Amino acid sequence: MTAFHPTARFPRGFRCASRNVGLKPEAKDLTLFVSEVDAAAAAVFTRNHFPGAPILLGRETIRGGVLRAIIANSKVSNVATGARGVEHARRMAAAAAAELGTTADQVLVSSTGVIGVPLPVEKIEAGVRGMASDLQDDPLVGAEGIMTTDTHPKALSISVGAATITWVAKGSGMIEPNMATMLAYIFTDAAIAAPTLDAMLRTAIARSFNMLSVDTDTSTSDTCAILANGLAGPVDERAFVEALTAGCIRMTEILGRDGEGAEHLVRVQVRGARDDREARFIAKAVLNSPLVKTMVHGADPNVGRLLMAVGKCFDCTVHPASTDAWINGHQVVRGGERLPFDEATVRQALAAEVVDLEIALGVGPAEATAYGCDLTKGYIEENASYYSS
Amino acid sequence: MTAFHPTARFPRGFRCASRNVGLKPEAKDLTLFVSEVDAAAAAVFTRNHFPGAPILLGRETIRGGVLRAIIANSKVSNVATGARGVEHARRMAAAAAAELGTTADQVLVSSTGVIGVPLPVEKIEAGVRGMASDLQDDPLVGAEGIMTTDTHPKALSISVGAATITWVAKGSGMIEPNMATMLAYIFTDAAIAAPTLDAMLRTAIARSFNMLSVDTDTSTSDTCAILANGLAGPVDERAFVEALTAGCIRMTEILGRDGEGAEHLVRVQVRGARDDREARFIAKAVLNSPLVKTMVHGADPNVGRLLMAVGKCFDCTVHPASTDAWINGHQVVRGGERLPFDEATVRQALAAEVVDLEIALGVGPAEATAYGCDLTKGYIEENASYYSS
Repeated sequence: MTAFHPTARFPRGFRCASRNVGLKPEAKDLTLFVSEVDAAAAAVFTRNHFPGAPILLGRETIRGGVLRAIIANSKVSNVATGARGVEHARRMAAAAAAELGTTADQVLVSSTGVIGVPLPVEKIEAGVRGMASDLQDDPLVGAEGIMTTDTHPKALSISVGAATITWVAKGSGMIEPNMATMLAYIFTDAAIAAPTLDAMLRTAIARSFNMLSVDTDTSTSDTCAILANGLAGPVDERAFVEALTAGCIRMTEILGRDGEGAEHLVRVQVRGARDDREARFIAKAVLNSPLVKTMVHGADPNVGRLLMAVGKCFDCTVHPASTDAWINGHQVVRGGERLPFDEATVRQALAAEVVDLEIALGVGPAEATAYGCDLTKGYIEENASYYSS
Repeated sequence: MTAFHPTARFPRGFRCASRNVGLKPEAKDLTLFVSEVDAAAAAVFTRNHFPGAPILLGRETIRGGVLRAIIANSKVSNVATGARGVEHARRMAAAAAAELGTTADQVLVSSTGVIGVPLPVEKIEAGVRGMASDLQDDPLVGAEGIMTTDTHPKALSISVGAATITWVAKGSGMIEPNMATMLAYIFTDAAIAAPTLDAMLRTAIARSFNMLSVDTDTSTSDTCAILANGLAGPVDERAFVEALTAGCIRMTEILGRDGEGAEHLVRVQVRGARDDREARFIAKAVLNSPLVKTMVHGADPNVGRLLMAVGKCFDCTVHPASTDAWINGHQVVRGGERLPFDEATVRQALAAEVVDLEIALGVGPAEATAYGCDLTKGYIEENASYYSS
């Protein structure tokens, strides 16, 4: 496995800028990502039945398979805003294209924030003017402009041969992506054609963002896009997919650890499941159980809850007699029965920042890992007043 | 609709007793319910793959279709305890039968509390001695002995012709019953044969306990049993099913309002769904959304979350253009778009103790209502230390 760079950096030809344009009181709320040449592009979007206006437009834009830029704002998601919302998304693309000297059909638009509030598009149109001269090399600058409840900007990069892959993402709540996480952008200077890029992206997402859940709620704005501008030339495709998947998994862990109110990253690994569908379903069920999440939060060794959560997967194959479970390597269940264990040891294991819950079902060959976090009073606090604050 | 009695009372021939037998420090932890004559009986149990020992025994017992008594303890659920657990459940039935002068195969056993801890069966065997002389007429006395995190004992009764139906239940967390709630016992002096009783119970449960969710977690101990001792003679069957369903719905509301940490009863009514399955699925999805639950908790009119929660039901038929929504009668969404509404009014509606969320999908004739509660810091607090406290 190639190691991630100690500090995230862009592949050749990519730059970004971010600003406050008045959507938030002071924090940055608008970001541009730009490729200096045409980039082959692929993207996946939310499966929510009420996709935001930028998603409706994005599905149209990505058909071209070529992007030059991404414009993304935070604070207002432009969702449930009807035909006027789509018009606003088009105006965002046009404003970015005018500023950068490209065409609107090569600009991907994203918006994230409160649902159902009209987008102040004039502030964005005015604010984007002059941003071309702010463009610079630090991906974290772009990450800043798309934060909502994130506690820190998120970027990663890795080398594959002569090429680089860079991830920039945001996401903290309303997270159980289906097809993508809230907003995740991936940039590379490898030369890869759009259809290949699309297949690679879907492979990587199946094992990463689509196995992430902070709160079981699927956003109306989820977008994951990859741009390959080719400036580093061709790369070994197998090595690229491996690196792409590793980075998507790592970014998934970063998003899970920064889940709203989270104090732990929780990983649930299910082994010995009947098939992939069941392995994924059970891993998600354990990860999403409020009683498992609060057990981790309180470092309370109430391990029977692991069995409860596996057992409520009615339509999956589960045999109590072959079911084992571990918490950070300490076995707590064997053959469906709770083992006597040293409580202090298990409490300590649950208190670690990263908590691995392993379930071995013993009924088949499939495995899956799901990523998320504990459930805390901080989650309640943020979400009981998100709209008002 | 017949009205519920102002104070719950038993049908003819039923009595109960409860005691502290040393499972909890001081509170009552053992209950007996007794019919003075043989009662026709039916029961449904959890579908969790790790059913408790009392469930394994109960499935065997209920096949006889006749019960004379129920013995139930709180504090320890006797789940994930292997063959020894089943032996302990049998010993509980035998101890109750000896005390009451009946046979163990006419005694239903329940246990509720922590999973994976051995049942202190000797304390129960010693404690049940002499309870026959404590038997009395107030159902709430029986309800007290089965409480775990419930904040109050729960009982209801209603008249149907010359007969009475009485409900006694407990349940506060780990509640998304499938086939029944945690523990709900229904007593009647109507004369109804066991197979009819079974069909009636399943009809009532489909619209009540099976539509309840406090936290999406399905207990390993869920049990709902009905005993009909016939002392009031035959009743009109239609009136009986109607009363049985009304009482099960009312008890479902009582359990939802007393969900762990809850400050509101939340009811989600979905209308105009394609079919029953979709109506039920969408109602549960909205009810279970942590973001909808925290919106209610904070009386924060973030109504876009209703669309998000409907929209994440990928496999259901949802047309944004025909989707409307109301909060306690105030319309907040029309045709998939957020309406401008008076925020103070909607805040006030969300602050009511009972919050009705209505969704009209406009794609078919089916409807369903789901019952639950808001998500609060109290839930986190109770469940981060349930095992240890």
